[in-house]
Amino acid sequence: MSALSYLPVLLGIIGLYCAYLVYGIVKAAPAGSGKVVEIGNEIHLGAMVFMKAEYSRLAIFATVVLLAIWMSDLGGTTAFAFLLGALCSGAAGYIGMYTATQANVRTATAAQDEGASQALTVAFFGGSIMGLTVASMGLLGLGILYLLFGSDPHTVHVIHGFGMGASTVALFSRVGGGIFTKSADVGADLVGKLEAGIPEDDPRNPGVIADNVGDNVGDVAGMGSDIFESYCGSMIASLAIASTMGLAAIHQLADNQQTLMFMPLALASLGLLCSIAGIYAVKQFADKSPEVALRFGTIGASALFIITALILIFSMGGTFNLWMAVLAGSVGGIIIGLVTEYYTGGAPVRKLAKDGETGAATVMISGLALGMQSVALPVVTIAAIIFIASHYAGLYGVGIAAVGMLATVGITMAIDAYGPIADNAGGIAEMAEMEEQTREITDSLDELGNTTAAIGKGFAIGAAALAALALISAYIETISHGNPDFQLLLNDPIVLVGMFLGGIFPFLISALTMTAVGDAAFEMIHEIRRQFRDIPGLLEGTAKPDTARCIDIATKAALNKMILPGAIAVFAPVLIGFGLGPEALGGMLGGALITGVMMALMMANAGGAWDNAKKYVEKGNLGGKGSDVHTAVVVGDTVGDPLKDTSGPAMNILINVMAIVSLVIAPLLV
Amino acid sequence: MSALSYLPVLLGIIGLYCAYLVYGIVKAAPAGSGKVVEIGNEIHLGAMVFMKAEYSRLAIFATVVLLAIWMSDLGGTTAFAFLLGALCSGAAGYIGMYTATQANVRTATAAQDEGASQALTVAFFGGSIMGLTVASMGLLGLGILYLLFGSDPHTVHVIHGFGMGASTVALFSRVGGGIFTKSADVGADLVGKLEAGIPEDDPRNPGVIADNVGDNVGDVAGMGSDIFESYCGSMIASLAIASTMGLAAIHQLADNQQTLMFMPLALASLGLLCSIAGIYAVKQFADKSPEVALRFGTIGASALFIITALILIFSMGGTFNLWMAVLAGSVGGIIIGLVTEYYTGGAPVRKLAKDGETGAATVMISGLALGMQSVALPVVTIAAIIFIASHYAGLYGVGIAAVGMLATVGITMAIDAYGPIADNAGGIAEMAEMEEQTREITDSLDELGNTTAAIGKGFAIGAAALAALALISAYIETISHGNPDFQLLLNDPIVLVGMFLGGIFPFLISALTMTAVGDAAFEMIHEIRRQFRDIPGLLEGTAKPDTARCIDIATKAALNKMILPGAIAVFAPVLIGFGLGPEALGGMLGGALITGVMMALMMANAGGAWDNAKKYVEKGNLGGKGSDVHTAVVVGDTVGDPLKDTSGPAMNILINVMAIVSLVIAPLLV
Repeated sequence: MSALSYLPVLLGIIGLYCAYLVYGIVKAAPAGSGKVVEIGNEIHLGAMVFMKAEYSRLAIFATVVLLAIWMSDLGGTTAFAFLLGALCSGAAGYIGMYTATQANVRTATAAQDEGASQALTVAFFGGSIMGLTVASMGLLGLGILYLLFGSDPHTVHVIHGFGMGASTVALFSRVGGGIFTKSADVGADLVGKLEAGIPEDDPRNPGVIADNVGDNVGDVAGMGSDIFESYCGSMIASLAIASTMGLAAIHQLADNQQTLMFMPLALASLGLLCSIAGIYAVKQFADKSPEVALRFGTIGASALFIITALILIFSMGGTFNLWMAVLAGSVGGIIIGLVTEYYTGGAPVRKLAKDGETGAATVMISGLALGMQSVALPVVTIAAIIFIASHYAGLYGVGIAAVGMLATVGITMAIDAYGPIADNAGGIAEMAEMEEQTREITDSLDELGNTTAAIGKGFAIGAAALAALALISAYIETISHGNPDFQLLLNDPIVLVGMFLGGIFPFLISALTMTAVGDAAFEMIHEIRRQFRDIPGLLEGTAKPDTARCIDIATKAALNKMILPGAIAVFAPVLIGFGLGPEALGGMLGGALITGVMMALMMANAGGAWDNAKKYVEKGNLGGKGSDVHTAVVVGDTVGDPLKDTSGPAMNILINVMAIVSLVIAPLLV
Repeated sequence: MSALSYLPVLLGIIGLYCAYLVYGIVKAAPAGSGKVVEIGNEIHLGAMVFMKAEYSRLAIFATVVLLAIWMSDLGGTTAFAFLLGALCSGAAGYIGMYTATQANVRTATAAQDEGASQALTVAFFGGSIMGLTVASMGLLGLGILYLLFGSDPHTVHVIHGFGMGASTVALFSRVGGGIFTKSADVGADLVGKLEAGIPEDDPRNPGVIADNVGDNVGDVAGMGSDIFESYCGSMIASLAIASTMGLAAIHQLADNQQTLMFMPLALASLGLLCSIAGIYAVKQFADKSPEVALRFGTIGASALFIITALILIFSMGGTFNLWMAVLAGSVGGIIIGLVTEYYTGGAPVRKLAKDGETGAATVMISGLALGMQSVALPVVTIAAIIFIASHYAGLYGVGIAAVGMLATVGITMAIDAYGPIADNAGGIAEMAEMEEQTREITDSLDELGNTTAAIGKGFAIGAAALAALALISAYIETISHGNPDFQLLLNDPIVLVGMFLGGIFPFLISALTMTAVGDAAFEMIHEIRRQFRDIPGLLEGTAKPDTARCIDIATKAALNKMILPGAIAVFAPVLIGFGLGPEALGGMLGGALITGVMMALMMANAGGAWDNAKKYVEKGNLGGKGSDVHTAVVVGDTVGDPLKDTSGPAMNILINVMAIVSLVIAPLLV
């Protein structure tokens, strides 16, 4: 084992140290005083209480899975890897959210005291901690496992457990956080905006603190775990495929197998360095134009990564073919992001808003159509990435393309997490009744965050699709390795049965999570109506709402309703695999992948477009706030909320969880 | 060639003669007088004008495809079969719609003059003409081609052209009719019900005639062509698979190959006889309870078919294995229908209506979730059918299961077409200001029609899925026959590329058709608003609306917007097949099948549930008409309209068109 093998662990530690330094900068910014701190604390505490409750439930579930792994033929080492993955994922989510709920008040205060540039810096640095933590935790965890088990193709299977641990935590974080945030959001908006006619984030609304807590537990912690598992999944899949490759295939790509097995970790390490450089660049350019700074940071980090990856690959004895796969993934990720941005921000959104002239029904029809249409180009891009990457480097290339897309996760995740921080800062400014000018700054930061978040979401789906595909390939290779007769033929009836069954899961999980949000929002609406009715002086602003009760409703809904979807995702592959055999399981993964990617894109883009159509009207277009058009687009936005922030994002993890569980149990199915 | 070979042609002629006899009975019923006849004529003429315009456009498109086939290596015989298929499909749609627009007035008049039982008889007989025509045209056309080309496995390929012709016509009828009917419906409802506050089918509303025309061109003619092509597709696929089967496989199922090739036609012939018996039974029991009569007729015809099929199979030298496939298909079809009925009529619908208490947004969220959830059981049933049928009779069994499911299409289609006739009768009664009592009868017939239509829709999707799957299998067998190395491996990157690309189409076609409806409805709404504003005395009932203008808007929208979706469906397989090769095309068909079936079920069931939730509220529940809950559920119903009657049904044909085109071009791809 060469000295290079220690690089991921080393870079993981460096990355965490950088995150710690950035945290120092954020922490040093003034938190403000009086009402700001009070509201900030309420949000922070609400988030922490939820996280604690969520992680306690998760711990029980994870323990059951851990014991099941331990007692199976997979044994203690895989169980240990599972535990490590779960802990790393949990820690990344927790750290990111902890710091995000400190950055939000500081962003609001910076916007008030020091202006836009400093506010952007605080918010972006707050997001960077999440980005750096996700990347570093991944490198650290996988790096350690690689040192322990990665040198030998026979023990490398242990590492899959890490991915399964990470995915399990991610699934619950995403689903639980998603249900929490949207039941609060939908409930608060419907009663507050439409019925009571008070603005968003109005302190009189009993649901707004819950809504702001939700931004953190859903969009920060949930998103962090989501990206974390795709990031690790892509590396694990590449490593797994490399470990089963034949000599001829290996020599087309590199000097030896060990190089190919280590390559994903090496590329990710390089990506972390590029991300740090990107974050530094954003800081440097933030004074001029925030938008240019963020864009330059992300695209610049990707470009730097693409160029340096060529040097890295050559210096490690890899070939040009390998680099082509990296290039396909990196460029493809950017294209998917830009397409997403178009559908959720460009001409389609203005048309959608205009459809509000004929009421909520036409907004719904057009939005659903927009979401469906928006599936086409990103999926064509994914198909192109698969085509190019596999042309140059086989299925290993698909895995490496995913690694390439996700390598600069440090900065893309930073920008993702920046969004909810800026959103929260706006909420705090509103609730603390800061000056109009402050709110204008936070609004502009929030708007910027929405655009970048759209790109991030498209990106996350593309990456998840490739990571899942690579994991599925690894599953097939693992089974084939043990049973050379194994074939997944599309015209084999049992494969078809699996495909049909697999295709169901994305629809079923979407239904369960949407129903959970709908039911919780229903309860929330009744509670908020009750408070408006029963608490004298609440609407006049002389009495305080009972915000804790709303947080409690969202928490209970999230905790109770996240179990079933999570359990389905984890246990379905086990049931199908042992019940109908490895062919049916392979078909199932294929079916779930196809429908999952489509549904994820449709829901994310329809939801994003509805959200921005509402914002477009609220800026004064087509009659502005309070007009009939506004009422229509608010309905659209409300429907889009669970689609884009609960069910849609759950798809990414769903397909990855099912794939990684299959990969883990593959040796038992041979 | 045995004498039995002439049976399908003979039965086709007998069936058409029966349809002619039934037409005589319908025609003999009094059409009524005065306003009723006037309105009936307006609807009839509007429908005929649209059909003429639609078929003219279709003729151009079909001629282009015809010439392309002729000039390719497929030659004149396949082109002839294509023409015959297109003509049979077109004729079935035309005859069905022509008679439906005569049965609607007669149903209204019978309800007024003679009561419920006679009204049911007229409406059901009106639908039966459609059902008998669809089945007979299929048997006649395929029977003739079988006599000409079916005895020799080398010429049997010609018959595929028939399916392609039928599918091409079906696609345009379905898409064009669907766009017409829903742009009129959505437009008329939104302005009439929500804005002007006048009842559905109020003669003052300028859009109601267009809406009633739409029921005929969409739900009767469109649905007829749709079922026609699944019906023929399942027979063609079974025939094609049988023609490529090896001796060992053949001998597990029957004495010789010719028996297996003829079996689908024989089963369909038997099914037609059972359907005629079922129709007769409905007539006999109609006096007692209409609901029991319809249910007894359909289930009874299926049961009779299942039993007699066993005798037929044994007498033709087939085995028990073959019958198991028939059984799986027949029973599976009923199960899928019942599940659909539950989701669009049972407890879920009442919950959906209750969600209207918190506004349109929660109705939308819950309805989408309901649609997604409703995918599970039908797809599990489809998977079970595939599993059982292929276990007993291989991929041929899947085709035969589809034939089994569709064999009694004569009666299922009769009940499907009965729905829009009853709906139209209600509209005519309303517009002609018939007595309250008459309207109660037509309303109850309409309600019954809605339930049976829900079953029919689920059934159509299941049948289309199996037919498409059988066609895809036939495609794979055809390619493999020419190239023994051909394999569709799920982990072959080019197959994956095809799968991802294929998965896009259902989303894209849904988006295009929904957008078409949305845009046309937008125009329709502005036109109806304009008429209410500009025509003095319209709302007071002293002036007549300009209904022709609304028909014109719907016609133009339908004709212009049906071309692109149709062209995509027909040419995509050609492009992918010749551009990326037969492996990618195979993957594409698989991907499109999975997402297409899921989307079809989701859209049909969500739309059906929203429709019935509205009806539930309109019956006086949860505040009844005019309440806030009612406003919320009307939004749901409006959104559901294009989902369930335009985009959803287009999925069935889409997957079949793509499969049959692939099968036709398969010899060119080897």
